[in-house]
Amino acid sequence: MPNAKVYSYGAPYEYALCYLYSMQLLLVYRIVVLVDSDVKVVKMALLRRLRRICTRNAYVSCVAWSHKVHSSAKLSSLKSLIYSAHGDPSKVVERVDSAVISSRLKDNEVLIRMLAAPINPADMNMIQGVYPLLPKLPAVGGNEGVGEVMQVGKAVTELQAGDWVVPAGAGWGTWRMVAVCPSTQVMKIPNDISIVSGATILVNPSTAYRMLADFVNLSPGDCIIQNGANSGVGQAVIQLAAQMSLHTINVIRVGRPGHDQLVKYLKELGATYVVTDEYLKSKEMTDLVKSLPSGAPRLALNCVGGRNFVDLLKHVAFRGVAVTYGGMAKQPLYVPAGPLIFNDVKLCGFWNSRWISENRGSDSAKNMWNYIADSMRSGHLREPLHRLVPMEDFTKAIERSMEPFVTEKQILILNEHFSQK
Amino acid sequence: MPNAKVYSYGAPYEYALCYLYSMQLLLVYRIVVLVDSDVKVVKMALLRRLRRICTRNAYVSCVAWSHKVHSSAKLSSLKSLIYSAHGDPSKVVERVDSAVISSRLKDNEVLIRMLAAPINPADMNMIQGVYPLLPKLPAVGGNEGVGEVMQVGKAVTELQAGDWVVPAGAGWGTWRMVAVCPSTQVMKIPNDISIVSGATILVNPSTAYRMLADFVNLSPGDCIIQNGANSGVGQAVIQLAAQMSLHTINVIRVGRPGHDQLVKYLKELGATYVVTDEYLKSKEMTDLVKSLPSGAPRLALNCVGGRNFVDLLKHVAFRGVAVTYGGMAKQPLYVPAGPLIFNDVKLCGFWNSRWISENRGSDSAKNMWNYIADSMRSGHLREPLHRLVPMEDFTKAIERSMEPFVTEKQILILNEHFSQK
Repeated sequence: MPNAKVYSYGAPYEYALCYLYSMQLLLVYRIVVLVDSDVKVVKMALLRRLRRICTRNAYVSCVAWSHKVHSSAKLSSLKSLIYSAHGDPSKVVERVDSAVISSRLKDNEVLIRMLAAPINPADMNMIQGVYPLLPKLPAVGGNEGVGEVMQVGKAVTELQAGDWVVPAGAGWGTWRMVAVCPSTQVMKIPNDISIVSGATILVNPSTAYRMLADFVNLSPGDCIIQNGANSGVGQAVIQLAAQMSLHTINVIRVGRPGHDQLVKYLKELGATYVVTDEYLKSKEMTDLVKSLPSGAPRLALNCVGGRNFVDLLKHVAFRGVAVTYGGMAKQPLYVPAGPLIFNDVKLCGFWNSRWISENRGSDSAKNMWNYIADSMRSGHLREPLHRLVPMEDFTKAIERSMEPFVTEKQILILNEHFSQK
Repeated sequence: MPNAKVYSYGAPYEYALCYLYSMQLLLVYRIVVLVDSDVKVVKMALLRRLRRICTRNAYVSCVAWSHKVHSSAKLSSLKSLIYSAHGDPSKVVERVDSAVISSRLKDNEVLIRMLAAPINPADMNMIQGVYPLLPKLPAVGGNEGVGEVMQVGKAVTELQAGDWVVPAGAGWGTWRMVAVCPSTQVMKIPNDISIVSGATILVNPSTAYRMLADFVNLSPGDCIIQNGANSGVGQAVIQLAAQMSLHTINVIRVGRPGHDQLVKYLKELGATYVVTDEYLKSKEMTDLVKSLPSGAPRLALNCVGGRNFVDLLKHVAFRGVAVTYGGMAKQPLYVPAGPLIFNDVKLCGFWNSRWISENRGSDSAKNMWNYIADSMRSGHLREPLHRLVPMEDFTKAIERSMEPFVTEKQILILNEHFSQK
């Protein structure tokens, strides 16, 4: 059991376990327990209350999954990054010892050792309580990340030990060392890519891929336009589009620090044009669009919104589509009626989490993961700029992730094996 | 030739005609001439120049179509309401004597006696020069209206004398007594409805019908929501929706004069709910939408835009569609990213002129005209509130059409037969 030392218990939990064993409860029910680090003895009343809490909230869990593991475990702790109230993420997120105690996996469950998980803007919004989907509190943070399947329940056929998985729905809680959940809550991705690629495959590459695939029928040589081009999705769009022989007009904010380096970097990724949101208003921009051999962009991708959306929209072709997947300006999109009525432009939205949860296990999803993994292996889709952060330094990582103009992604290391890989 | 007296010439044109005959030109070419009322003799140089102008601009035309008609014509005038420059419609529109002189109809042409034509907001925008489609100047005003076919060219099979027709494209110019054009520029509508119904069938009922038919698959009992509910389209939507057993939430501006009468009138038309744009923000409105047996509206129709669009959009169901067909607020739509991304709401536009020109002669169009005519005959779709205005009083009618809060439509009488019908 080489992994046993990872999923082990600190002293307080041993007391709790002894108590549970003595009650024979482990033989009857799988009991889910969230234990604070200062609890010495878990009483039945507390246990019942905790069970109620935790049954309602599958997100709060770590696990010790068998007698064998218990007995061979070292006295270290399983950790999760949880929040018990909405608020400033750098203040409300705590690193706690937590445990799900189970005699064995249910038939439909899998045991997952989490490897790494990024800190994304949507995670911050969820913790702040401003995301449209909010898990019950307390909740484990994080919506994206990669884990390795350690063990599967009897009825689970589509996964086996060694497979890599990512969450199939929003709010699953990736910032933890270990998880037990129904197999339908996760989905398999190729496990021969880097851990950073695996930890960041779920959101950005998938969002970019779907927006390029699902809204407009694009052909090699066509040009698309996107704002927020330096965002994680923006970078994935540039690379996947280049791989598909699509040209890209990439809009970034005017006057941002490190402008020239950013332009250089985006062009290295495969950007055809990089322009500022100010340039978008200019006659030169109109001329540029007129000069495109394939005509004006039929697809626009928007993660900014606000007043400047007008300038993006005016370059979209007749019967083109503008897809909104973010709202970084924190302002409503300004949409003149003209392009809608007279240019027959459509405005759509894309939410990756919903697509993923609606299409888990579908051929579309499998084809996408394979395509993206191939792109990663071939070097067409690079790992995002990132900084690896040990789990215990989560506060710093969260703070850094919320600074403006930081392009590098903060990625939490959730497992000691990770750094050895 | 009972109609001959209608299409006759003033003295100046007789000079021109004599000159033309003497040049044998009428035997060779069909010559299109725009003649000012103070021209006594049309010289060849002028003729050539006028021909160039008029060939470029099919909108500027009246007609005398045969020897017989010429010879039996009384010395009265054919009139058109034209504008030679963009500007204030009450100032730039002129009533002029104008003529198209032709030895005979071309094989593909039809001769149309216009009966009546309304003054619509789009007409005003076109004259102001702020419409996306602008005919070359000078141009005849008016985009909607009904005419009776008097004569058809040899190759025209789909139309015959006595048929009623409406323009098949924007900018055709309906404010004239008579027109000659290729048969493809017009399309047949039933001729057993009232002239007011015929004159106003093209824009409002068609727009309402298409928006109810083409964006969301609606079933009896479903509810839709629309703003600008007192507009011509809004009234048609209410009536067609009621006929289709759809419920309607109708939004009108708060504090408008005659509020109570308007609410009463819209309810008489079949409106299920009439609410103000202020009420749209209220908790009561949210409760109303929650209480709908068929759930939140999956279709929203918008002809207003501006900030209040936010309030409309928030009541649209998951995967609903908001269709914009006007921009009365003269402000961009404020569109929060949330409904697009998380509620998967789509924003589309609808432009009736484009639909008409793209679908002329299609089964969809025929079915629609028949359905609408049936609705008119059965009384489900009333004539719009209107005021009949003799053509010579066009200035007053234009001024009235531009006053705020005037619900009645100004309809120009273009033919003396009209009032007798």
